[in-house]
Formats: sequence, structure tokens, C-alpha cells
Amino acid sequence: MSLKAISSKDAASLDKDLMEIGGWSLDQLMELAGLSVSQAVYRVHPPSAGKNILLVCGPGNNGGDGLVAARHLAQYGYKPSIYYPKQGKNELYQRLRTQLDNLSVPFIEDFPVAIKSADLLVDAIFGFSFGGPLRDPFPTIISQIESALVPVLSVDAPSSWDIESGPPKEGPGSKFMPEYLISLTAPKPCVKYYQGRHFLGGRFLTKSITEKYGLDLPNYPGIDQIVEIGVDAEGKL
Amino acid sequence: MSLKAISSKDAASLDKDLMEIGGWSLDQLMELAGLSVSQAVYRVHPPSAGKNILLVCGPGNNGGDGLVAARHLAQYGYKPSIYYPKQGKNELYQRLRTQLDNLSVPFIEDFPVAIKSADLLVDAIFGFSFGGPLRDPFPTIISQIESALVPVLSVDAPSSWDIESGPPKEGPGSKFMPEYLISLTAPKPCVKYYQGRHFLGGRFLTKSITEKYGLDLPNYPGIDQIVEIGVDAEGKL
Repeated sequence: MSLKAISSKDAASLDKDLMEIGGWSLDQLMELAGLSVSQAVYRVHPPSAGKNILLVCGPGNNGGDGLVAARHLAQYGYKPSIYYPKQGKNELYQRLRTQLDNLSVPFIEDFPVAIKSADLLVDAIFGFSFGGPLRDPFPTIISQIESALVPVLSVDAPSSWDIESGPPKEGPGSKFMPEYLISLTAPKPCVKYYQGRHFLGGRFLTKSITEKYGLDLPNYPGIDQIVEIGVDAEGKL
Repeated sequence: MSLKAISSKDAASLDKDLMEIGGWSLDQLMELAGLSVSQAVYRVHPPSAGKNILLVCGPGNNGGDGLVAARHLAQYGYKPSIYYPKQGKNELYQRLRTQLDNLSVPFIEDFPVAIKSADLLVDAIFGFSFGGPLRDPFPTIISQIESALVPVLSVDAPSSWDIESGPPKEGPGSKFMPEYLISLTAPKPCVKYYQGRHFLGGRFLTKSITEKYGLDLPNYPGIDQIVEIGVDAEGKL
């Protein structure tokens, strides 16, 4: 299935429309985005496959989606832990962190050690607003993820990839190909360089929004907050 | 299965704890509460059983949960409509209404006509904070629901029931026994007078909160935001 991608600029404009015209708060949007990430984790990696989920969260909304996902994963019975090297300023991030503290979800400091005991890594570092280049400490973190043996689910885009032109030609991220990707609201142009299982999440768009941005999105089945792309209605690839 | 109920006073205190200590916003809590209501609707009344879901929303947070549920139901492919005779003042309710307007979910005025074409009615009028007595226009509305033939799902408590002592002895609500009930966070004392299918929703409590309020809640299965009470792990009553 080939889906029309949404540019970084249009994705920013769409988010703005949702909040300024659509009546949405960031709290609501992030809750549903993070919920869809948690459902993708459950789909590709059920708790029986290992409960240690390490979420690497960036300083912006992509990281916030990861924090919400971690909260839901804890409710599903996983043992999530968070690596959050650079917390952003929005007070929502602090509240999400409080929620995780109250669930005894640990925020770890030693990433190289944590990655060794992780069963799945969630890359919630950067999403559609990433403009590059990677700034410290993220080149090191991306290199560590790249060389680790743990499977990775990236949120919205593989972190370090250019949203339009995909993986960097050299350096950290140039060999980064996550096993799983969940695009939020709509795929970004860089998905044409992506090879792996691909999901869509963020089930909250209206017909007028999808028409305004020329999106042609698949139907979500039942009550699911995710839909796998490239899979037919019976779940076959 | 007998679950410990939470008093109206403790339920209010628990909500306050979640927001003042737990880092939660009302937007987040209402999103997950409304999502659980939408999943209960899907469970008891899948779209194939009829898509016309009429949600009667009260002026407070119970009504807000109904508005969120309606939004998710529209995303699931239902044709929800809302009867909202007395909109509350919180700006969140207006934003939820805007979200529904953008999905072309109608706010109807003629309740007696709408109820005749509804396949399921969601009673999101009053929840745990209802202190009685019913004030206009709600006595008439409750009587209309009571005498209608449509199945009803009540949110948190059957509206008109006293949260402690159950159905009123006489007048509107005295014969009100909804087919379905979804208790939010924990059952209220009035559930001992309830006969029908009973669900629990609001999958966001922490261990310290359930311990503080002496709750003994069942485990939610998988990624579900609801759990049926009185049903074993294989789904048998």
C-alpha cells in the first residue's frame, strides 16, 4: 500500500490546526499518540516476549509521546524504563514524568548498561520536526542504538533521519534501520527509505483535515488505535 | 466477583489526588475515561448491531466523558448524536464540542424523537458527584429514558440513583435499570442495587492510590481499557 506522505511543514500546520481550530489540547493529542505507540509495542512485542522496554525520549513532543506510551505499557504489565537525557521545558513533560514516578517507572542514567538488558527499545527521540544536525548527546546515543542488538520501534521517524531525505549519508544514523516504525497521523516522506513493519497511529483526524492536507489514510480496524500499513484486512502482508 | 465500592467523598478525593499530586490534567483523565466508555459500547453493541448511538450528556464531568466517548465512537464508524440540554461552564466541554462539530456529530434538540431512532442510549448525565434531587429538565429526561425501549449504558452510575442508596423510592428513576453500566476507576456503593452487565473503566490508577483508598480492582486484560466484572478470564459469567 502506498500512502501519500505529509511534509514536515504540513505536519506542523496540521498540529496547529488541531489545536487552534479543532479544539484539541496538547494533553489530549499526546495521550492518543502515546496510546497508539503502546499498542504498536504490544502488537510487535507482547509481554510474553520480554517485559523490559527501554524508551529513549527526546526533549520535544516525540519524547512526550514516549512518556505516555511508557505509562500505558506499565499498565499492560510491562517493565518500562526511560532514558531522558534532555528534558524539554513544557510543563506537560514534568507532569508525565510525575505520573511515571508514581507508577515506579525508573528514569535511568546509564544507557549503555540499560540497553543490554532491554527486550525492545522505543526510539522516541525526534519526530517530524527534526531539522538536524544531531546535537550532543544525541550522536553518541544514536550510535549506541545503531550498534545494539535489541530490536527498535521508532516513533514517527527513525531518529537522525532527515524527514524528507531519509538516513544521513555518513556518521550516526547512516546505518540505522529500525525493525518497526509507527508514523503518527500520516507517514512522513522519509518512509520511502524505510524497510520494516510500518504502523500508523493517531486516530483523531477529521475528514476536513485529511482533505485539506490531501491525505489518503487507511481505515483503522475496530477499536484499534493503530493500523498496520502494507497488510490487508485479514492481517496478511 | 464482589468489589469494594468507593464512596462519593472518596471518589472526589481520589480525583483531586490524581490532579494535585499525580500530575494528571482533566483533559487526560477525561480522554481515558471516555475512551473506556467507547470500548464498553463497542463490546455490548458492535457497529453491526446498529450505528445510531444517542448520548445524553449532563453538565459536569460525566457529560464530558460522554462527549469524549462520542468522538471515539465516530472514529469507530458509529453515527453518534448528542443530547446536551445543559452545557457546563468548563472550557474543556466547549473544546470537546468543537471536536464533535468537526466530525459532523449532531447535537440534537428533540430528545423524544431522537430516542425513537436510537439503537443504544448512553446515559452520561450524572456520575459519582450526583447529590440529588434531580432539577429541571432532568426529571423529564429520566422519565423519557425509563419509558423508552432502547437499551441503555450508564456511565459511572445510573443517573437519578443516589450514589449510596441506589434508585429513588418513587418518581423518575425509581424503575430505571440500565442494561449496561460502566463504573469509572471503581464501583460506587449503589452498584449493589444494580442488575445487568457491569464493566470497569479508567485504567490509570497507581498501586499507591488503590492502596490509599483500599480498592481491590480486577486486572484489565491485554491492552483493553475496560474489564467486565463478574466474568472470568475466559470471558464466562
